[in-house]
Amino acid sequence: MSFIRNILNSRSSKDGNFFLQLQNILGFKPKNKSLYRKAFTHRSMNLKDKKGNPINYERLEFVGDAMLSSIIAAYLYGQVPHGDEGYLTKMRSKVVSREHLNELGKDLKLIDFVVSRISKSSFGDNIHGNLFESLIGAIYLDRGYSYCEKFIHKNVIIPYVDIETLEGKVISYKSLLIEWCQKEKKSFDYDVYEDTGKDELKHFSVKLSIDEKVIAKGRATSKKKAEEKASKRAFFAFQKQITKPI
Amino acid sequence: MSFIRNILNSRSSKDGNFFLQLQNILGFKPKNKSLYRKAFTHRSMNLKDKKGNPINYERLEFVGDAMLSSIIAAYLYGQVPHGDEGYLTKMRSKVVSREHLNELGKDLKLIDFVVSRISKSSFGDNIHGNLFESLIGAIYLDRGYSYCEKFIHKNVIIPYVDIETLEGKVISYKSLLIEWCQKEKKSFDYDVYEDTGKDELKHFSVKLSIDEKVIAKGRATSKKKAEEKASKRAFFAFQKQITKPI
Repeated sequence: MSFIRNILNSRSSKDGNFFLQLQNILGFKPKNKSLYRKAFTHRSMNLKDKKGNPINYERLEFVGDAMLSSIIAAYLYGQVPHGDEGYLTKMRSKVVSREHLNELGKDLKLIDFVVSRISKSSFGDNIHGNLFESLIGAIYLDRGYSYCEKFIHKNVIIPYVDIETLEGKVISYKSLLIEWCQKEKKSFDYDVYEDTGKDELKHFSVKLSIDEKVIAKGRATSKKKAEEKASKRAFFAFQKQITKPI
Repeated sequence: MSFIRNILNSRSSKDGNFFLQLQNILGFKPKNKSLYRKAFTHRSMNLKDKKGNPINYERLEFVGDAMLSSIIAAYLYGQVPHGDEGYLTKMRSKVVSREHLNELGKDLKLIDFVVSRISKSSFGDNIHGNLFESLIGAIYLDRGYSYCEKFIHKNVIIPYVDIETLEGKVISYKSLLIEWCQKEKKSFDYDVYEDTGKDELKHFSVKLSIDEKVIAKGRATSKKKAEEKASKRAFFAFQKQITKPI
């Protein structure tokens, strides 16, 4: 028991820091903080509420998964007027694939927030996607559908979802963006630098400037990937294709 | 072509009636009427918009199915604090089962609204559930998540979903209600009458009064089923168990 108490105490002292970092990711202030604590509590903690119900993120995953599916469904409906039910289902399953969700959770470094009795290094890759889903569940239960929708637009749709890529039509956003800059007579610059920080793997960051103004940033494990991320973000910012569904 | 035109003309003359009846079901006034027309247009009509995209209810089913799943997920999360992810998934799949959705669509007589080139008698049973989903999709796209949530609470959760039944614990709401009335010293009366109307099958309606005030109604293909429906509605009305999730 003292083991758990120690963990909880040490967490409690870090609570302020946790919510500060979380707020950066969310883009808004959490109201019901206990939901977010739950969203990052691993089952190995064996925590229970007064009624004996387990406190961990697994039930929130269920809610988050459902919300993600419906928000992506509505987005695809609006974006692809020619796609039939089968097509829409296929496109959605690409967006919410386990692999993709893991990538999203990794990008937000959600694993840093996990409270667990077992070592983080022993988790499989799916923990990243699971935490991403549980966070979405907490957002829905804390602030409702529209906050959830905004979070998914900002963190899933804008940086990662576009129909051309899903259909395998666009290979490189960097080349698309360069083509566009040349056509529009705009100057562009990719400022790439090593940005490994505390990560185990080497990381790179890039600042993409167009007409000498920083338009988008990207960070990834290779220069090419970081450039591609920044290019995609810039491309969408310019195209203003990221509108609400309907 | 003149065939389609005739159908469309005859439909157009019935448009006012369609929206009047629909409004009764929805409980609010539709804003974007074309969405609801689409929600009841069968693919056999072969309709296309100016860009050549098909106009029928199949894409709306995709959106409605996703919304239904997420709203039921959130509801179950709130109602069953002891249920783990697997339990919640299983409970949801019972609520949104094909059989159940068909029953819901049938109850609302949605098939009466369908515009089709093929005879309605040749549709399989699934058309009822498909139309129910497409209607939910239209509601979401027309009025947003909260309207959709209210519609699903009114038409799915209140009359049909409760954990006890899903878990197979409650066999009869009629006996539960009678027991409750006896305990609370309330008088009760089931007023059953034949109410087949234009249906092919014989139907019965029931008015359930408690302390001489009509509390709930039910309509079904047998006296017993109609009484059970009314009892369930009355039971929930009294228990006020039907609250928003969270």
